[in-house]
Amino acid sequence: MPKLTYEERDVALAALSGWTWDGARDGISRSFQFANFGEAFAFMTRVALLAEKADHHPEWSNVWKKVDIFLTTHSAKGLTRLDIDLATAIDAVAGQLALRPKGQ
Amino acid sequence: MPKLTYEERDVALAALSGWTWDGARDGISRSFQFANFGEAFAFMTRVALLAEKADHHPEWSNVWKKVDIFLTTHSAKGLTRLDIDLATAIDAVAGQLALRPKGQ
Amino acid sequence: MPKLTYEERDVALAALSGWTWDGARDGISRSFQFANFGEAFAFMTRVALLAEKADHHPEWSNVWKKVDIFLTTHSAKGLTRLDIDLATAIDAVAGQLALRPKGQ
Amino acid sequence: MPKLTYEERDVALAALSGWTWDGARDGISRSFQFANFGEAFAFMTRVALLAEKADHHPEWSNVWKKVDIFLTTHSAKGLTRLDIDLATAIDAVAGQLALRPKGQ
Repeated sequence: MPKLTYEERDVALAALSGWTWDGARDGISRSFQFANFGEAFAFMTRVALLAEKADHHPEWSNVWKKVDIFLTTHSAKGLTRLDIDLATAIDAVAGQLALRPKGQ
Repeated sequence: MPKLTYEERDVALAALSGWTWDGARDGISRSFQFANFGEAFAFMTRVALLAEKADHHPEWSNVWKKVDIFLTTHSAKGLTRLDIDLATAIDAVAGQLALRPKGQ
Repeated sequence: MPKLTYEERDVALAALSGWTWDGARDGISRSFQFANFGEAFAFMTRVALLAEKADHHPEWSNVWKKVDIFLTTHSAKGLTRLDIDLATAIDAVAGQLALRPKGQ
Repeated sequence: MPKLTYEERDVALAALSGWTWDGARDGISRSFQFANFGEAFAFMTRVALLAEKADHHPEWSNVWKKVDIFLTTHSAKGLTRLDIDLATAIDAVAGQLALRPKGQ
């Protein structure tokens, strides 16, 4: 799985609203805010199932109703198509939950 | 926690659309249908958290994207307010997911 | 994925202690007993991850600290290698938890 | 729920092997290492159920098979009995899983 070129990365990020490029760590991150802990953890369970199926796992943290996800591909030492695909799947899942915009 | 009277039960069930009274087992049941296994299991995780918090647990089964839930209160040998409260909380959670009507 | 022959099935079941052949439904089942609901549901989460990864899912039910699992392959209308592999993986997971023998 | 005194904290930490005092954030942390992602996430599910039941939630992160947990009580602006009780319950759960010592 090769690293994305700059051009591929820009195209992919343009299609992924809400994800931010992290140059220092060569990956992408997004923060998700939910109504409460239960909703946040059910979202994490969905993401865990997606990740296990793809055999590609996030670096993530959770505090109460907030979930922060960082994606990169260690074996490629940078961002690959695996990350973009997982981010797209995560967004689809998040959209199904009663997702609140960050800051609320 | 006392068993509901017939009258209390009828009032409670009228407010819970989708739940069916099971006279033989003195409890209530509902079937939930989701888009896929991941969505169904995330729903189950939400319900597990609700149940553990309430210290009142469902009898339930899952086949692929379907989840069947039966609620009763063993210590009371019948339906109590605990079941109605958990059913109400489960419905609220199910409404947040991309829940499909049964049969689709 | 072809159905196992009688001979293959017998060899496979002999290696799977605790699983019972269900002729009427052409599948295998096992009951797992845990210390409490939390332990039972964590086991279910492990199994959910295994199932999603294998894209092969159990028919299962949970009551408090008990989990009953039935495995068959619908597309083959009977028991296949997928079921044996998933049962083997489930047993490995159950062995890591503080699993109690049934009846305790 | 009052903050623990220095003395209470020292007594509590002495009984919690593996947890480290973080003075800057007035809380305690511990890192858990598992065999794989599935085992790590099943552990997280167990902890989520404990946390929801106690209505006291961790700050935690997960990378592949590692789970880092930080506990403090925001409403008390520091470490309380809630944190010690949750840490004790988490340790009991971790001990049931095939927990590897950190670094392996």
